[in-house]
Amino acid sequence: MKKSLSRAAFGIVALSLVSVASAQVKPEDQIKYRKAGYSFMSWNMSKIKANLEGTYDAAQVTAAANAIASIAGSGMGALYGAGTEKSIGDQKTRVKPELFQSMPEVGKLAGEFNAATANLAKVAATGDAAAVKVAFGDVGKTCKACHDKFRED
Amino acid sequence: MKKSLSRAAFGIVALSLVSVASAQVKPEDQIKYRKAGYSFMSWNMSKIKANLEGTYDAAQVTAAANAIASIAGSGMGALYGAGTEKSIGDQKTRVKPELFQSMPEVGKLAGEFNAATANLAKVAATGDAAAVKVAFGDVGKTCKACHDKFRED
Repeated sequence: MKKSLSRAAFGIVALSLVSVASAQVKPEDQIKYRKAGYSFMSWNMSKIKANLEGTYDAAQVTAAANAIASIAGSGMGALYGAGTEKSIGDQKTRVKPELFQSMPEVGKLAGEFNAATANLAKVAATGDAAAVKVAFGDVGKTCKACHDKFRED
Repeated sequence: MKKSLSRAAFGIVALSLVSVASAQVKPEDQIKYRKAGYSFMSWNMSKIKANLEGTYDAAQVTAAANAIASIAGSGMGALYGAGTEKSIGDQKTRVKPELFQSMPEVGKLAGEFNAATANLAKVAATGDAAAVKVAFGDVGKTCKACHDKFRED
């Protein structure tokens, strides 16, 4: 749990480093990259779900959980820079502009999401499918918490 | 190195599990997810490059390298199923159809890519920027090897 919290904290720090690390990433590319991250996590979530509902392949679940945790922990906050509040040309975004006025809350939600994904990766490594089911559900809740508040349907 | 090779081998195994794990992923979604994976890796490669050329932040480089390695190791071979040889509607792909007739060679290139990304993650964890520069270059070579053969410009 300590490790999860420190990773979460790093996520929040990363969020505050936006201007330093990604000044050179164009707003439309920030939208593209963040959507790519969520999309790739979504594929891996669906693989874990399929494993929990069918034949459980611990290696596949571990690989999927590692992908999710490391994407979540890669400092995606840097992809919410100025100018990314709305779609830019072909780069559509469903983000609600309110997100950009709610950074402390977003940081908290992001921290909880990061912690839940780090925990899922840790639990997946044990190969305990029942425990993975619980950890997977916890990740889903943290996804939903942010979608409900800050994503258009 | 042993660990890298075993990860690479898992990547190849994953490639052969296409039909089992992803039968339910529509071809257009396979294209979407694989493009998302490459796109997100590309963002993380550019962050590592910026660190090597500017101020080196070991935590950011480690997080980026972990994201790249775990995406590469997540079984992306499953996203090259039947029907994904060419663009489908809005889901454009630059893959050359030859890739689908060259699976043994693709498996070898994918294995080398996976091994190089696993090595980059391992080296990044040491915080040795000079060693990261070498490992980063090695990853770039394995990206290029596949792009040169199997991706349209």
